[in-house]
Amino acid sequence: MFSIFIVLLNKEMHHYTKTSLSNLPKIFRLNLINSCTGFKSANLIGSKSQKGISNVAIFSSVTHLGSNPSMLGFIIRPTTVPRNTYDNIKKTGVFTVNHINSSQIKDAHQTSAKYETDISEFDKTNFEEEYIEDFFAPFVKDSKIKLGCKFVNEYHIKENDTILIVASIESLFVAEELIQEDGWLNLDKASTVAINGLDGYAKPSLLDRFKYARPNQETQSFFENGS
Amino acid sequence: MFSIFIVLLNKEMHHYTKTSLSNLPKIFRLNLINSCTGFKSANLIGSKSQKGISNVAIFSSVTHLGSNPSMLGFIIRPTTVPRNTYDNIKKTGVFTVNHINSSQIKDAHQTSAKYETDISEFDKTNFEEEYIEDFFAPFVKDSKIKLGCKFVNEYHIKENDTILIVASIESLFVAEELIQEDGWLNLDKASTVAINGLDGYAKPSLLDRFKYARPNQETQSFFENGS
Repeated sequence: MFSIFIVLLNKEMHHYTKTSLSNLPKIFRLNLINSCTGFKSANLIGSKSQKGISNVAIFSSVTHLGSNPSMLGFIIRPTTVPRNTYDNIKKTGVFTVNHINSSQIKDAHQTSAKYETDISEFDKTNFEEEYIEDFFAPFVKDSKIKLGCKFVNEYHIKENDTILIVASIESLFVAEELIQEDGWLNLDKASTVAINGLDGYAKPSLLDRFKYARPNQETQSFFENGS
Repeated sequence: MFSIFIVLLNKEMHHYTKTSLSNLPKIFRLNLINSCTGFKSANLIGSKSQKGISNVAIFSSVTHLGSNPSMLGFIIRPTTVPRNTYDNIKKTGVFTVNHINSSQIKDAHQTSAKYETDISEFDKTNFEEEYIEDFFAPFVKDSKIKLGCKFVNEYHIKENDTILIVASIESLFVAEELIQEDGWLNLDKASTVAINGLDGYAKPSLLDRFKYARPNQETQSFFENGS
């Protein structure tokens, strides 16, 4: 019985061990490991240097950290590609987070190119920088959800020399039509995309929302019998 | 000109300031802030206590950390809901990460209910636990992408008393049909879902993949001109 199970498993599922993962060609491993944790958020981080050079770069690691106080985090590898973003945040203390929608994916991907420090990706793409009130960092004009954030702390993840940036949400701009009665934002309606691996862009369609789950109660859709 | 711009902005975009966010009713703020960072990954974390009680719980914060060595992270608030997961990981050193697909969202949501410590969510949902080789933590049988992970480190995020768990990927199981030639996994084909806020489940459809971006070169689709 056990051996039959193993045969079936081998037929359908590929098994990568820690050793086989580390022996994979670099690009294959990059694609595989970047895909295997699921869909990622798709945001443009806007920042500006003290010299006034603006920067916008795609990030797939922006994650909710807490809602009271409102905080988010993201992972950065300061020694490689998005070094401008890190330097700007450390020196000016602020940045913006702007949702990428389905019409912007080509330009959003282009922001991952290694431009020189004195070049603004806003000049190399169709994204327009937008300054709101006295916030120093640029927002992305056409984004339907955008956040003004302040650097709070950083944690060095010594295991692979990355940094978790922790930031507070100082300002949140949301297109009115996305805000539901209970504060939930309809990201499907915003055409916000999600990232698959390093370079795949997908458009999520809402399947359902569920009410708060309780032990020994049937899971209920938010849209059944009112809300 | 400037005043016209402000009027338009006010008409279409709602502006929450830091103060207005902190003054919102708790549930409204929870929904809003949990939605505003974009789509999140949707995974079931499987673990088992030293006493042998299995546990499976939904997490929306699993994030790629690095591919050499293969590492992921996720955020946990040890003093509240998913305490069993944290305790099991700390005591046994291992856990599994299993993609949630579109047919599993109701059961996946139900795992967020606060069951007693001696109750396994596997007994309260349609999920079946699966033990592969000698890995101590349970995998979720029907998941098409599942990872066996080992605890590596934890970072206490003091700003809101959460913990970033850092783990290594020891084992990766992927349904053969999802693996592309270059290692990229087609999560659309896997019907992997993404999470919108606290309780919304969405099914992403692939829009495009792009080739590695370079300065001053047109962004190219992966599916154009071969490769």
